Amino acid sequence: MTNSWATFGADLHLEPVGRGLRAGLMAALREAVRTGRLTPGTRLPSSRVLAADLGVARNTVADAYAELVAEGWLTARQGSGTRVAQRSAPRRTDPAAAAPARPARPGAGYNLKPGSPDLSAFPRTAWLRAARKALTAAPDEAFGYVDPYGRVELRTVLAEYLARARGVHADPERIVICSGFAHGLTLLGRALRRRRVRDVAVESYGLDLHRDLLTEAGLRTPCLPLDEHGSRTGELSAMRGAGAVLLTPAHQFPTGVPLHPDRRATVVDWARSTGGLILEDDYDGELRYDRQPVGALQGLDPERVVHLGTVSKSLAPGLRLGWMVLPRSLVGEVVAVKGVSDWMCGSPDQLTLAEFIASGAYDRHVRSMRLRYRRRRDELVAALADRAPGTEVSGIAAGLHAVLGLPAGAERSVIQAAAFQGLALEGLARYRHPDAPAARDALVIGYGSPSESAWAGTLDALCRVLP
Amino acid sequence: MTNSWATFGADLHLEPVGRGLRAGLMAALREAVRTGRLTPGTRLPSSRVLAADLGVARNTVADAYAELVAEGWLTARQGSGTRVAQRSAPRRTDPAAAAPARPARPGAGYNLKPGSPDLSAFPRTAWLRAARKALTAAPDEAFGYVDPYGRVELRTVLAEYLARARGVHADPERIVICSGFAHGLTLLGRALRRRRVRDVAVESYGLDLHRDLLTEAGLRTPCLPLDEHGSRTGELSAMRGAGAVLLTPAHQFPTGVPLHPDRRATVVDWARSTGGLILEDDYDGELRYDRQPVGALQGLDPERVVHLGTVSKSLAPGLRLGWMVLPRSLVGEVVAVKGVSDWMCGSPDQLTLAEFIASGAYDRHVRSMRLRYRRRRDELVAALADRAPGTEVSGIAAGLHAVLGLPAGAERSVIQAAAFQGLALEGLARYRHPDAPAARDALVIGYGSPSESAWAGTLDALCRVLP
Repeated sequence: MTNSWATFGADLHLEPVGRGLRAGLMAALREAVRTGRLTPGTRLPSSRVLAADLGVARNTVADAYAELVAEGWLTARQGSGTRVAQRSAPRRTDPAAAAPARPARPGAGYNLKPGSPDLSAFPRTAWLRAARKALTAAPDEAFGYVDPYGRVELRTVLAEYLARARGVHADPERIVICSGFAHGLTLLGRALRRRRVRDVAVESYGLDLHRDLLTEAGLRTPCLPLDEHGSRTGELSAMRGAGAVLLTPAHQFPTGVPLHPDRRATVVDWARSTGGLILEDDYDGELRYDRQPVGALQGLDPERVVHLGTVSKSLAPGLRLGWMVLPRSLVGEVVAVKGVSDWMCGSPDQLTLAEFIASGAYDRHVRSMRLRYRRRRDELVAALADRAPGTEVSGIAAGLHAVLGLPAGAERSVIQAAAFQGLALEGLARYRHPDAPAARDALVIGYGSPSESAWAGTLDALCRVLP
Repeated sequence: MTNSWATFGADLHLEPVGRGLRAGLMAALREAVRTGRLTPGTRLPSSRVLAADLGVARNTVADAYAELVAEGWLTARQGSGTRVAQRSAPRRTDPAAAAPARPARPGAGYNLKPGSPDLSAFPRTAWLRAARKALTAAPDEAFGYVDPYGRVELRTVLAEYLARARGVHADPERIVICSGFAHGLTLLGRALRRRRVRDVAVESYGLDLHRDLLTEAGLRTPCLPLDEHGSRTGELSAMRGAGAVLLTPAHQFPTGVPLHPDRRATVVDWARSTGGLILEDDYDGELRYDRQPVGALQGLDPERVVHLGTVSKSLAPGLRLGWMVLPRSLVGEVVAVKGVSDWMCGSPDQLTLAEFIASGAYDRHVRSMRLRYRRRRDELVAALADRAPGTEVSGIAAGLHAVLGLPAGAERSVIQAAAFQGLALEGLARYRHPDAPAARDALVIGYGSPSESAWAGTLDALCRVLP
């Protein structure tokens, strides 16, 4: 799960930072020019277009442009639009001064976008302790060119951990380490294309990034409908071309429902009878609050399900560590796609994670985060009952996010109002598959994102913008 | 630089390990079956074909096959060839017992293949000290989703270091962190294809992996001739389609000559007059023995040269950390190609490397390794003068490897004889561009690869197999 960025041009991502929307937009544009992402002479989108992209008033953009022209960053000429000035960036010469070279990440204000755990909770001391133990004990060859499978130490402890914690049928020889879910999905997409698969069914709500990665691999991503019991897997058999399906069975993202047991059985039956493959995105499977975790779907049929997991939600996305537990028949193909040049994950972090899990520190951390997030969820529900009593909350039995229903037509205006107050929110609409029916108005609230110290203020800010 | 593997099938790489060739081949085959890379029923290549692939006697392979049939790993039937037995792998149930799941890396015997530094010299204590300092000081957001540019802390210290140590015109805003050279070259290849470049000229001797990566990106790799002054860059202007050239200017790999100053000037002139781009692979630029390091070519024209470096030779390939210093006009394109999903390098190792460089530990390590490798080079030259006095040694002013001339026709037999004695060697022939004229017979000796304790024995083993 990533953050959303308003995009213009091929490669420019802007996100207004800080409290005031105009000031934030100006800061983001200045940074883009300063860092060379907007090169001199580049024509900016019209204020009308950018305003629509960002979901803000046109005047906000027009004012920001005008001030930046006044400051010399941009030029505006009748008929030629607004452009980046030729000598715009006062180049910094002191490298240290260049430190904040990218626009600040969310966190400058309040942030309730989903997709990130509480980064302030990263267990630095325990991680360093594991690093010391792992690197001291590592054989010399651990510092050599890496194995495309990933370090055997990590695959070995993961096999044990995933069996215990998630009911995954795993052994080290069918685990391949990757740099997180996106990397794993990219590799799987390419392997599926080599198998001549054309379509991978995806849930009608999910991350556009995941659809895009499959599309880049040459696959189509037809839409599997979703209701209050999760994805309607019974409809797969009518989707003739689908050779695989991408699911979030434990806790559908973003709607938050678990896949109904009948539908779990149905999708496995479909896979068995058609030879299809199930890609199980187990992004937050360890974070379950009200009952035992839903076991991994992979446990039902290890030869038909690819189980994908990462430490991005349980520990930190910055580690870039994930894994695929593969059907035996697919291991060779995925490693072949990975190829000799895809040596992405450094050994020290892999060895450290292995030691971190083996020592029990990972279990302790997950337990403590589960308590923290459950408390936040309870406080969210209580605050809403108290201060926004009409709000329906759902999808809260697990994970780091909740769905808050809104009155019809209110989603966009609530997000805009929040942005003006420095609170970053995300609506359900942006997760909709293009072929899915129109979404109900709702917010997808990532209550894991704030730091512990910012949580109370963030919750308060949310309550203030709700209708 | 990677190790070579004899290949058969789409995805199986075998390398005989250990001392005896037959025993090594048997071990490699057992591992391949055990790990599922060779699945039951798979037909193996005939002993004649595999023997030719591996450059060994046919009887060696036939004997290995026969013993594995006797052990129950393989089956042999008249007319159906040798196959993997149906119930071949005694599946291990204890995950810990599965530890050495991949064939052992070179190092089981003696290894003088080029491409690796002395892994036993990795400065574990200093690295852990840097990790502690870096992770303790890191802001919370360092544990969040990573920036496609790489951590600003690392880009900032690299800019300073590369300017000081390699004469690179760098600033943090034109540096992009990648997972080593192969990753960087892949990204550049894709960016060049988007610019509609068709051909990237490559040196007539170099790594096939690098040519393959460019080919995968949709580029052709015409061959630029090479002589005792390095690549004949004057011939670029006659290569009409070439939009870029890949060079190892400081220390040509594998021949070891530095690019002559006139030819450095010529290639920059070519780039300026044609708009072409120079990709500078500075793989061992810090390791210079007899005089000051040759400065980076990038210093001559930062807008026409991409400078690529890694810590793979100076520190450890297992870190998977490298960098590109890009012309300003190319930064946005490379980051666009990298895309939102290419979050490959974990933050902890990036931050640790930044601290490792900033604290001076990197300089100290490079200095100490330079002394170690220079001593080994001197010992190699002295041993050859003493025990194989006819052998011509070249390319030894820098780096981790030397070229040893052999009598015409002797290359293959020397490598084979060495393999039988448990010494892994590599010949010049395998680095030849398919369009280059036939190579002289020579060995490319990676004297950096052995550990300090194995060095004397390895050198002795080399002297014994030389004619």
